[in-house]
Amino acid sequence: MAIRIAVDGMGGDNAPGEIVKGAVMGARQYGADIILVGPQDVMQGELAKHDTSGLNIDIVHTDEYLVEGEHPAYALRKKRKASIAVATKLVKSGDADAVISAGPTGGVVASALQFLGTIEGISRPVVGGAFLGFTPNMLMMDMGGNVDCKPYQFLDFAIVGTVFAKKMLGIENPTVALLSIGAEEGKGNEVVRESYPLFAKSGLNFIGQVEGYDIPTGKANVIICDGFVGNIIVKFGESLGKLIAKYLENELKGKIPDADLKHITDYMIYATNAADARGGGPLWAINGVSCVAHGRAIAEEFAKVIEQAKIVVEKDIVGSLKAELAEIRSKIGNDIY
Amino acid sequence: MAIRIAVDGMGGDNAPGEIVKGAVMGARQYGADIILVGPQDVMQGELAKHDTSGLNIDIVHTDEYLVEGEHPAYALRKKRKASIAVATKLVKSGDADAVISAGPTGGVVASALQFLGTIEGISRPVVGGAFLGFTPNMLMMDMGGNVDCKPYQFLDFAIVGTVFAKKMLGIENPTVALLSIGAEEGKGNEVVRESYPLFAKSGLNFIGQVEGYDIPTGKANVIICDGFVGNIIVKFGESLGKLIAKYLENELKGKIPDADLKHITDYMIYATNAADARGGGPLWAINGVSCVAHGRAIAEEFAKVIEQAKIVVEKDIVGSLKAELAEIRSKIGNDIY
Repeated sequence: MAIRIAVDGMGGDNAPGEIVKGAVMGARQYGADIILVGPQDVMQGELAKHDTSGLNIDIVHTDEYLVEGEHPAYALRKKRKASIAVATKLVKSGDADAVISAGPTGGVVASALQFLGTIEGISRPVVGGAFLGFTPNMLMMDMGGNVDCKPYQFLDFAIVGTVFAKKMLGIENPTVALLSIGAEEGKGNEVVRESYPLFAKSGLNFIGQVEGYDIPTGKANVIICDGFVGNIIVKFGESLGKLIAKYLENELKGKIPDADLKHITDYMIYATNAADARGGGPLWAINGVSCVAHGRAIAEEFAKVIEQAKIVVEKDIVGSLKAELAEIRSKIGNDIY
Repeated sequence: MAIRIAVDGMGGDNAPGEIVKGAVMGARQYGADIILVGPQDVMQGELAKHDTSGLNIDIVHTDEYLVEGEHPAYALRKKRKASIAVATKLVKSGDADAVISAGPTGGVVASALQFLGTIEGISRPVVGGAFLGFTPNMLMMDMGGNVDCKPYQFLDFAIVGTVFAKKMLGIENPTVALLSIGAEEGKGNEVVRESYPLFAKSGLNFIGQVEGYDIPTGKANVIICDGFVGNIIVKFGESLGKLIAKYLENELKGKIPDADLKHITDYMIYATNAADARGGGPLWAINGVSCVAHGRAIAEEFAKVIEQAKIVVEKDIVGSLKAELAEIRSKIGNDIY
């Protein structure tokens, strides 16, 4: 049976046009069934612009949707039939295997928490992944909203990252490291120092601490930091890459063929910001598959998130996460929580 | 009267050869008097290799010095006549205006704390500066060992940064921002959220919060973060720059003239790691001028640190810091400390 993806047809800067187009592309490329959630007439109008022959695309009607700038939790209370809420509930009810939205991230997170909840023992979703083209086998967790973390949260990130690296990247025994300001145990801030002994007895393939220098070189497969640090690093790298691409554009224009120059500047963007190239990714540790697409995603990017959602469903990452969590916790005991 | 710089002749990976050479270069280029601290015969032997005519270079003898890998505070207790200790005491006694060492940073910091102390009201030295060639007018504080900071420390960093930007960079009214994960007040971790109101009433030119994205674009002159975040960012950027330079080397070799290629790869290193190009910098908030040179500094880099030390002394940055601290604290009251 084909994977069924609920798509928030009204979420994103380029909704509904690019979202519906991307959904059609994803359905075609990855053989997914699509449930578009949005106003019936709008969705139908967009669908009519594309060749949907042989595809399985349904529409679930709703008139409401979130807009950027609203407080997500508050807006969701007012708009009980917001497209992201309706789409997420389709996963809860089993009518869809995954939900994808390019709408406000806070709304995707709030809907996921409200209707799907987190895996037992993890209180908040985790965001992370491989973010540098230089090191496709290095992923960082958390990049999202988990700030001021406790050691047990770091351990959760590490477990999520390990499962991600195993199942999504095919790495057999992923190495895990704590991001810090020196390699030796004892160097770092409080949460790093407290996490070290916990990681050491976790049964994870813990290789100790790495430094900022080791991020682009991919010294570990899974690098653990709080979402404050992770978010700043990801955005810093992205910004640096864009400045460098611009510098090279100016410096090399006319000196090498335009196609070569484009190859180089494109690679600079990709190397420093692979996350963008993927168009988005899943919220980890949610008890179901909920994916955030970039707000400014165009059709091609949105389609790539459909591919990711499909992989996460097919590989049963959620089930693997639950099993790994249970196993690691049985090893180190529950007294840390 | 010429500035007198005490140089730890035995500190650094390339000591004593490159250090003494750099001291001679600095003396010549910047008209500084030098006091070399180290074994008399070793210092004399190195000096004999250079033209020192017309220069004012003295030697203060000591047989002891720190080596990499020792615990700095412990080593300093055992080696009371370690070259870094003797050199720092020359500043304390007024025999030198500044001390520079490429030896273990921990030893420079411990000596500075022990013999010079910090400016009243600041408990630990602050490390920071402009670290990206892209944005020479943006400096970040702290990049050093101040982790798990309190809001009053962030304010100290901001005051230090403001004075630095005014006096060293010539910026009249430097903008100050808190590094966070969103521009709006309330977004960020605990120390950022608690610092915001303090900054708002500080009288500093506080422009709010900036994100990782805003670091390379230089959205503020002084960007405040704790030393954990700062250290990771600086090293991450440096590492990224080196990988990019290597990529461009491979990609462009033979396609453009070698000299053009070198210009580009050199700029990539500089753009992502301007701190290295300066060879080191002062420990801020020390009650005196103590400068850390990079451990691997060669003569040219060491000489540049002499230039920096000279500027810090001549512009009386330490005096300015004390005055600004007192003024800002009188504005916001002392109840926060």
